[in-house]
Amino acid sequence: MPSNPTRREFLQTTATVVTSLSLGALASPAGAADPHPPRSPKSRSVANLATRKLDGVRWGIIGLWERGLPTLADMLEIEGSEVRAICDPYGPAIEKALDEVTKSGKPKPAVFGDGPEDYRRLLERDDIDAVMICTPWRTHVPIALAALRAGKHAFVEVPAAVTVEDCWRLVEAAEETQLHCMMMENCCYGREELMLLQLCRQGVFGELLHGEAGYLHDLRGQLSEQVHGEGTWRPPEHVTRNGNLYPTHGLGPVAQYMGINRSDRFETLVSLSSPARGFADYAAKHFAEDDPRRKTVWACGDVNTSLIRTALGRTIVLQHNTSSARPYSRINQIQGTRGLFAGYPSRIYIEGTSPQEDHWETDLNSWFAKHEHPWWQEAQEAAKRTPGNRGDGHGGMDFVMRWRIMQCLRNGLPLDQSVYDAAAWSVVGPLSEQSVARGGAPVAVPDFTRGEWSKSSE
Amino acid sequence: MPSNPTRREFLQTTATVVTSLSLGALASPAGAADPHPPRSPKSRSVANLATRKLDGVRWGIIGLWERGLPTLADMLEIEGSEVRAICDPYGPAIEKALDEVTKSGKPKPAVFGDGPEDYRRLLERDDIDAVMICTPWRTHVPIALAALRAGKHAFVEVPAAVTVEDCWRLVEAAEETQLHCMMMENCCYGREELMLLQLCRQGVFGELLHGEAGYLHDLRGQLSEQVHGEGTWRPPEHVTRNGNLYPTHGLGPVAQYMGINRSDRFETLVSLSSPARGFADYAAKHFAEDDPRRKTVWACGDVNTSLIRTALGRTIVLQHNTSSARPYSRINQIQGTRGLFAGYPSRIYIEGTSPQEDHWETDLNSWFAKHEHPWWQEAQEAAKRTPGNRGDGHGGMDFVMRWRIMQCLRNGLPLDQSVYDAAAWSVVGPLSEQSVARGGAPVAVPDFTRGEWSKSSE
Repeated sequence: MPSNPTRREFLQTTATVVTSLSLGALASPAGAADPHPPRSPKSRSVANLATRKLDGVRWGIIGLWERGLPTLADMLEIEGSEVRAICDPYGPAIEKALDEVTKSGKPKPAVFGDGPEDYRRLLERDDIDAVMICTPWRTHVPIALAALRAGKHAFVEVPAAVTVEDCWRLVEAAEETQLHCMMMENCCYGREELMLLQLCRQGVFGELLHGEAGYLHDLRGQLSEQVHGEGTWRPPEHVTRNGNLYPTHGLGPVAQYMGINRSDRFETLVSLSSPARGFADYAAKHFAEDDPRRKTVWACGDVNTSLIRTALGRTIVLQHNTSSARPYSRINQIQGTRGLFAGYPSRIYIEGTSPQEDHWETDLNSWFAKHEHPWWQEAQEAAKRTPGNRGDGHGGMDFVMRWRIMQCLRNGLPLDQSVYDAAAWSVVGPLSEQSVARGGAPVAVPDFTRGEWSKSSE
Repeated sequence: MPSNPTRREFLQTTATVVTSLSLGALASPAGAADPHPPRSPKSRSVANLATRKLDGVRWGIIGLWERGLPTLADMLEIEGSEVRAICDPYGPAIEKALDEVTKSGKPKPAVFGDGPEDYRRLLERDDIDAVMICTPWRTHVPIALAALRAGKHAFVEVPAAVTVEDCWRLVEAAEETQLHCMMMENCCYGREELMLLQLCRQGVFGELLHGEAGYLHDLRGQLSEQVHGEGTWRPPEHVTRNGNLYPTHGLGPVAQYMGINRSDRFETLVSLSSPARGFADYAAKHFAEDDPRRKTVWACGDVNTSLIRTALGRTIVLQHNTSSARPYSRINQIQGTRGLFAGYPSRIYIEGTSPQEDHWETDLNSWFAKHEHPWWQEAQEAAKRTPGNRGDGHGGMDFVMRWRIMQCLRNGLPLDQSVYDAAAWSVVGPLSEQSVARGGAPVAVPDFTRGEWSKSSE
């Protein structure tokens, strides 16, 4: 592996990035070729990056609360995985994590809990191959950059980054260090999403034309969480930003169906937001009149809708709504020339295959019987072999993802999601803010692959 | 009623309109106050226009093919309606129409079939109060303008117009003549749509934030129709235009839920289209290699998605797809602060009312039992009183619309859809073309009410 750049060299690189990017992302007319910063001479593409096989993978788990605890629990039990160190500045999180370790019967990992920067000491250890970063959004990038610079593969929760500049920083660091930097988009490993990925690659839908995705999840209740956890830092994002704050759960799978960053790429984006009412209404209903949360002014429209156009001219509708009364949905729709799938509720129609012309099939059992993705079945079997009978997180997708990460690392295979995917899927967040602020004007999406999307194969 | 303007005066007026409009619709930055042409001194607003009660309504029906025949059949039988004249240049259409007359046992109307301009002779008759215009899209405006100038109320099929200028011409003519010019958007009279309109007005969804609508209907088969009818003129629209060619079926109901042109208005629009593949694929599959339809170059992307922002900051997703393999849908979604409805399949969730938190109700029977729109029931009863037991067109909505038009005309009530609605819902077609051509750039929607949308009541 190449030596890590000094911090000073790194900052010099990223300064160039930000300048070129501002020109590209903010000022490009729609449809113009999107400029991207030149790659540093020390760097190489990490498309299809394969790293040396790791017999076992020695993990550090950073962030041990809502998302970190189940991550830890899986990584303690998946074959070939060893958790060598855990880190969280919050005492109760460490305690719960150690309970998980005890339950698993595995050796106690080193513990790093001495303040919010203690992950740096964890990263100094030479017995760690890779880290999983399950911390609040805004800490993903600094921790991931530090991990890469310390020679560890970085696996980071969603979204990978919340600014355009930070998306570039992840790409630059991965290219310089030639290490994996994967965003752990678990929804790409849902049972339906995996089958759809396979159907899309097999051409069952014909040529893909249009996708729809979203994250529609009533999280108003987080406003009541005041002690620790997501409720303390996520609602405030709605005060300073107006756009799609959480784009990747819906978008990741659709981007994979379409081969984004492999044979197509996101090119431009427009975005509009509805009025912001949900959190204020919730506060008025649930909190005393003098509660400061009654005074909050919310910036983020409850329903944000973005429209993405790809280089091949395909379109994607992407929505975000975490502050309205409504049932959960990720939409998950893909339309091709031969038919389409739509989620929530799940239904499929393929011309000439579906039994009734112009009518949905709503029973997917026959589809799963014929087209189940092999990873799904393999992961179910791997889950059964774990002592704790893992495998139920988010309907199974969490375990499949972690099992698949281990499979790739142990066999020296490219990961399913590259750093370019992490950047392209995450950057839709800040770009949607730019478009909303400009009344829905088209914004160019940076080409993080620097032209290599059209040369890669799936 | 004021005298009709001479043709020369009319053209002078519309010339001003087009010039101001070009500035407004094409050059306004998004969000800027939308300029609209000043109203001619001879004109008055027709918001909430009520005309003198007509005991019976004497109709001329122009266009007697796909849409005209069932229109004629209803108008022959609805109480208080008399069909005095019928018109179509196509002989077999007249024959079928006369068969309908015979079936009904009603007096034979005057017949006008002497070429495509013979509707002008029909309009000269003084025993006709109103016409229904069920002709191909591009003839709606000239016939409606001629009807208004001849002192007849004009009821026109969807879309009312296919250019921005023609939308203004309809508005101008209705304001000058103080006559009704209603687009017959039947989907506003669907059973679900009527109930939703009522629920929205009653505040059941809380404050409305976001709507979704569409016309997703596989019409590729029209490419095989070559003798007469829609297939001969509708697919060619896909050769010259790229945008939402048929916006009103989905948009009309959602616009009514939101009180568009009464307490809100469409302000800006962005639009993107997917690649155009459907018709070419269909032709390749169904026609011989030397068939000229195999050579057609299609401009209109199969999936067009537009995003509309209203003056109150609400958003609407609007889609068009008539050239893909897929089941039918008009989407029909409305999200408010208290919950939402979504169609295809129909489902509703109202916080605090729906039995299970965050779960859809899919059985709407209890909702209909409590909230059925009275027009629906009244129209069903009126249908039973017709000799031919009418009332089944498009699931009943066609009859409800025609029954309701008669109710308004006979009682001197304002119609449910004004000429401003006809213009605002239809103009989304040509404006979507402008936005698509400019890579999704925002386009200002003209304010056909000239500021009166904020003064009207529902």
